[in-house]
Amino acid sequence: MTRAQIDGLLKKIESTEQPNGGSERVKEIVNRIMRDLFYTIEDLDIQPDEFWQGINFLTEAGQNGEYGLIAAGVGLEHFLDLRLDEEEEKAGITGGTPRTIEGPLYVAGAPKSVGFARLDDGTEVEEGEVFFMQGKVVDDNNNPIPNAIVEVWHANLKGCYSYFDQSQSEFNLRRTIVTDENGNYQFRSILPSGYAVPPGGSTEKLLSSIGRHGNRPSHVHFFVSAPGCRKLTTQINFEGDPYLWDDFAFATREGLVPTQITITDAEKIKEKGLDRPYSSIDFDFTLHKEIEGIHDTEVERLRAEALV
Amino acid sequence: MTRAQIDGLLKKIESTEQPNGGSERVKEIVNRIMRDLFYTIEDLDIQPDEFWQGINFLTEAGQNGEYGLIAAGVGLEHFLDLRLDEEEEKAGITGGTPRTIEGPLYVAGAPKSVGFARLDDGTEVEEGEVFFMQGKVVDDNNNPIPNAIVEVWHANLKGCYSYFDQSQSEFNLRRTIVTDENGNYQFRSILPSGYAVPPGGSTEKLLSSIGRHGNRPSHVHFFVSAPGCRKLTTQINFEGDPYLWDDFAFATREGLVPTQITITDAEKIKEKGLDRPYSSIDFDFTLHKEIEGIHDTEVERLRAEALV
Repeated sequence: MTRAQIDGLLKKIESTEQPNGGSERVKEIVNRIMRDLFYTIEDLDIQPDEFWQGINFLTEAGQNGEYGLIAAGVGLEHFLDLRLDEEEEKAGITGGTPRTIEGPLYVAGAPKSVGFARLDDGTEVEEGEVFFMQGKVVDDNNNPIPNAIVEVWHANLKGCYSYFDQSQSEFNLRRTIVTDENGNYQFRSILPSGYAVPPGGSTEKLLSSIGRHGNRPSHVHFFVSAPGCRKLTTQINFEGDPYLWDDFAFATREGLVPTQITITDAEKIKEKGLDRPYSSIDFDFTLHKEIEGIHDTEVERLRAEALV
Repeated sequence: MTRAQIDGLLKKIESTEQPNGGSERVKEIVNRIMRDLFYTIEDLDIQPDEFWQGINFLTEAGQNGEYGLIAAGVGLEHFLDLRLDEEEEKAGITGGTPRTIEGPLYVAGAPKSVGFARLDDGTEVEEGEVFFMQGKVVDDNNNPIPNAIVEVWHANLKGCYSYFDQSQSEFNLRRTIVTDENGNYQFRSILPSGYAVPPGGSTEKLLSSIGRHGNRPSHVHFFVSAPGCRKLTTQINFEGDPYLWDDFAFATREGLVPTQITITDAEKIKEKGLDRPYSSIDFDFTLHKEIEGIHDTEVERLRAEALV
């Protein structure tokens, strides 16, 4: 069909909308997406069999609960970050700790402590490598922020997250750390493994059908927040991971791959109550002050909440 | 972000596709849909909260199993019909019984009989109005087709379909009729009611947020097929229905609203074994001969299949 014919059809469909019914914003978005989809079907001569395959894919993805993962995998979640970066830059906000994607695996309600937390429940100490991460939360002027909230979560050695992986103890590798009076935080954990999207799932199906892998390099997630500051959603990555710059979710960013050192000094090892070398990462989080007139960074999305 | 910046990002994402991995066709379709979506997010300045609301909607629609209904409601299924019409016209196929949408409520495996079938199980005879529908299945040259297959399904007085509505008997209002040696079919049933999309479901949520209703006029679905002919997917509607030309699924078409007469003749009523007047509809289905070089009309989509 010609563009004129399709536009005529779209006009007929849109004419069934009541001027005062529903939301003008949703109409604007839905009508734009529909127009694009009608044009795509025509331009690519999409056949009914292909269309219904697509419908089946959408249904399965919902049933598998994988839309969050797909949004990351097709680069949409990263794109939202770049748009926030741009908005901040236009408002004169530059520097600070880069943001990166949240991913779909945060769980609210993790245990809270001041200054320090151990994240792991000890089950992987033998197989894994202990690491400590520490630093300050500071503002744009490099002033330490006491009572800032550092929420941290990461995968275990199998690349799985507690709560979604019910074989792990509750809130394993998930904690909320409140910075001390000097703005310091520190935690102890086990270096996480990278992982791939769930085998046989919708994300894997999509990625493999477009010739892509679904691997993520190992990483640790953070929400960092403080009153009067813009909430930071970010991750750190680890040097040397084969997927460091080939993340299926496009989340690795300059400034988020801190130096990781191995502590071999016997005194320091003993001080930590360990019997082997451990890794150590120093990393400060710099938060931007809240400013008027731009969108805030407290994003509402459906998140899991563990019942404690 | 500018178009150039977005195109650069899309190029980076697409560069992760392996040239010989996956399907070139799926890449073409996915990359087109993604490009449109990135542009839409930018052009309409879609905020993260809005984006994640959309993701929630897609998830729920999958969990509710409503993508088939949504495809009808936004006019996409009707659009596929218009594209098939156009393809046939270009190939010189004109006339015949108009096609219209299948909808998501067909169930394979209905009881089969030759020449005649009663569709209803008798439970709604008292409240409802009996109707008979009859005619021939003919080819482009108006020659009757013996042994053609007429699959018919419709809703009950509550607007519900057996199988999806487990309170109905198995295959109630669903039959497969094989035309007799003269190409004739006939069935007896109860005039169906129109209906609306499921209350509280994803389709209703979408339609109400764009100020649209989700009502369908009463109708009867058909698949009509015969060896050597193009399969016909169609419906008939009933005159006088308030939604006849305001179907939320855009399925009503000229040529699919047959004349419905009320038979009051005592002799005829008695002949049918009834004690009251009944409705009668004469309708012939004209099938096109199969031709080479265009897509056939046997559409593959996920359909329910009752275990008998």
